[in-house]
This record gives sequence, structure tokens and C-alpha cells, in this order.
Amino acid sequence: MPQNIYDDGDFFGAYLELDRSVHGLDGAPEWPALRNLLPPMSGRRVVDLGCGLGWFARWADAAGAASVLGVDLSERMLAGAADRTTSATISYRRGDLDTIELPASSFDLAFSSLTLHYLVDLPRLMRRVHDSLTPGSAFVFSCEHPILTAPSTQTFRTDEHGTTVWPLNDYQREGRRVTDWLAPGVVKYHRTMGTIVESLLSSEFALDALIEWAPSPEDLAEHPEWITELDRPMFLIVRATRI
Amino acid sequence: MPQNIYDDGDFFGAYLELDRSVHGLDGAPEWPALRNLLPPMSGRRVVDLGCGLGWFARWADAAGAASVLGVDLSERMLAGAADRTTSATISYRRGDLDTIELPASSFDLAFSSLTLHYLVDLPRLMRRVHDSLTPGSAFVFSCEHPILTAPSTQTFRTDEHGTTVWPLNDYQREGRRVTDWLAPGVVKYHRTMGTIVESLLSSEFALDALIEWAPSPEDLAEHPEWITELDRPMFLIVRATRI
Repeated sequence: MPQNIYDDGDFFGAYLELDRSVHGLDGAPEWPALRNLLPPMSGRRVVDLGCGLGWFARWADAAGAASVLGVDLSERMLAGAADRTTSATISYRRGDLDTIELPASSFDLAFSSLTLHYLVDLPRLMRRVHDSLTPGSAFVFSCEHPILTAPSTQTFRTDEHGTTVWPLNDYQREGRRVTDWLAPGVVKYHRTMGTIVESLLSSEFALDALIEWAPSPEDLAEHPEWITELDRPMFLIVRATRI
Repeated sequence: MPQNIYDDGDFFGAYLELDRSVHGLDGAPEWPALRNLLPPMSGRRVVDLGCGLGWFARWADAAGAASVLGVDLSERMLAGAADRTTSATISYRRGDLDTIELPASSFDLAFSSLTLHYLVDLPRLMRRVHDSLTPGSAFVFSCEHPILTAPSTQTFRTDEHGTTVWPLNDYQREGRRVTDWLAPGVVKYHRTMGTIVESLLSSEFALDALIEWAPSPEDLAEHPEWITELDRPMFLIVRATRI
């Protein structure tokens, strides 16, 4: 099963200070790219895999979803989500996405934001998501980009010419990575782009969109420090349709 | 139009000494992965975009293709291909893939090996290939992986801990790259994975397979020096179906 780092008090405290925790979806720079891939919410039964504090669940609910089920491994996250939620058409459930069972043909949209890189067994989840969706429904997700998760040392370096470089290595060696992000010892699982795409296609999804998020000129005007995001992609954003 | 480096005498002389020139498909480590994606050749009308010395054209012909058209920009390549070819069902034609026109619905398979990274305008070619194929036909290609083409300096480095790293930068900055490979000043065009996939999907191809080639354990036993190929992918291999 994945590490439950979000229930670590120090990690969670630091997480709550991130823009995306304070400001929700509007504090997440990749949200506009994700939103552009979403179908109309009206009447849709939505499952959010790794729902965190419930920002997306509440957005989908406000946009007219028939129901939203948020799933998360972290009790702290689920408590935070419940505290922020009043709509009766949103429900939250604790679940480990590596072992979860989902009801068959019960959702019209699956969504997952920056969660899948924590999973040990991505192909298993892909198959479960496929089976839980009605035919023609979409799975829209973001995850850390394989270029981000691959290296043994996941920090930029400055080379002898003063050029900022991302020290890529171990790309084809999939598996566990331990990084320091918000707290030491955060465990993620590196998978190649090929493996991620293959896990979708072999689960009978058709690939609709594959986006490597980059800051826009407007983003860079507001956040000049994001310029290194042009050196390597941080987030992968995908839409696939259940065949 | 792309640089025609293969008609540079020094470059071409060095190219002829590569394993893939001397031994053909069997000298290309990625060939088994490409071959696995190919449909049966029997009765198929095949177009090979960037046919080089015609190794694939002759393989497809021997495997029963109804016809094979090889296209290349390089006169030296086409002369080398003609010298090595006797079958009357193979034809070669000089063409610039950035401006080429192809007859509509005339092929049952499009193939391209390590050529597309030389093109200035990939989306244009994708549309032309789509229109030249019969519905349900495949486009199988390899190209240099975006991780390979991105950096301003495309050579491995050893960091202060003795770790071999690929100094990735400029990934999101698409366009012209000049590298030294076989000869100085070889011009390629970097595009992100997102752009390559989008150019396919927006040309009404369905993505069937996306492989980031890596050496197998057997490859590594024979070529221990390929171990750094596990640090970053060199080739992207794709199969898409014309909708």
C-alpha cells in the first residue's frame, strides 16, 4: 500500500500552507489545463480519487454534478474536506487506491489530481476505474511527470556554465523513490510515460489528450521564479475515454 | 525545409559505418520493438517516410507487401537504396517530408524510422499521412525521444558524486537544435511528448502504442556500454491507427 504521508502531522501542516490548500483550485497553476479537459458536470456522477480537502468535489457539485464521491487515504484530509463541505450530494470515503473496489458502471466521470504517483500498482487502479465508469465516460487526471519522478536526486542543479539543468537519470528504472517534499522521506513511485500510457490503453481506455503542463506567459509574469518549469515538465495531465 | 545532412559527404560516410547501415534492421537495437507493432505485410501497400538505404522497404517487400514506396530527401540515400534493391514492387522517390504531397487513401501502412525529428512541421506531415492511408491502417514510427532532443547540450555528464546524469533543460522550449552527431552542425527539431501526441490525435489518429525504447537484459549483456540508456530514453516508438 502507499505511504500515508498526508496523515503525518508535520507534512500535513506544511501542506495546509501551500497555495493549493489555502486558495483551492485557483491556487493550483495546472487547474485551468485540467478544467479544459472536463466535460460539463451537469447531472454527472463523479468520483474523485485522492480528493484531498475536497476542492474539486465542491467545484463539481457547484457546477451541477448529480453526485460526487471523494476518496482519500488520509484521515486528516477527509476531516479537512468534511469541515469545508455542506452539500449533501458530496460524500467522502476513506480508501486505499491500491486496493480499492469501486461499484461497476456507477460513475460518469473519474477525476484524480496529483495522486497516482503515490500508488504502488497503477494498472490495477486503471482497470478498476475503467469498470466503474459508464461507456464513453472520461477519466481526467494529473500526476507528477515521469521526468520529475525519475531522478535519484530530484533537484535542479547549476552546471559549470551557469546553466540550470534537471539531472535526469534512472528514467527506465521504475519503482520507489524517496524524496524530501514538505517533510523528509516522502515515498513516490516512478513510472515511465510509456508505462502510464500502456496502463490506460491495456485497460481499454482511448487516449484523448496528453498535456505536459508548462506555465503560460501570464503565469511567468506573475511568478518569474517558475521559469525553470520550462526546463522540465512537472505535471502530466491526461484525458482518456472508457471504451 | 529540413537540413539535408545525409547528402553531406562526411556525414554520409560516417553514417555508412554505423551498425544500422552495415547490418540493416538487425543492426538497429530498436527494430524488434518496431517490428512487434507492425501488422502482417501480406498484400499491403506501404509507404516508408525517410527510407534511407531501403532496409525496411526490402524487408516489407520480402514479407509480402503488395508495393512499397520509399521516400527520402537525400540523393545519396536513394542511390544507396537503389543499389541494394532488385524487386520491381519497391519504388523510391525523392521528397521533402515538410512539403510532400501524398496520394489520398493509397496506402495500408505508413512507416517512418528515426526521421520525424528532422522535420520543421510535424503536424502538417501527420495530416498528409492520415489522408494517404485507408481507414483502419496504421502509422508506425520511431523518432528521437523528446528527452533526447530537448537539452541545449546533448551529452551525458558525471556529477560530483560520480553519478551519470542527462542534463535536461529547455524541454518546454520547442524548435531548432544543433548537435554534433557524425558531423558537426546537425539540425533537429525538438518537440515535447505532448506536442507529438497532440499532432497525432488532432490529425484523427487513435494512439495504439507508445514505447520508450530501452535495452533489454540481453542487449545489455551484449553491449554493457548501453547501460546509460537506462538513464534516459533515446527513441520514441509509436503506433497509431487512422480513424
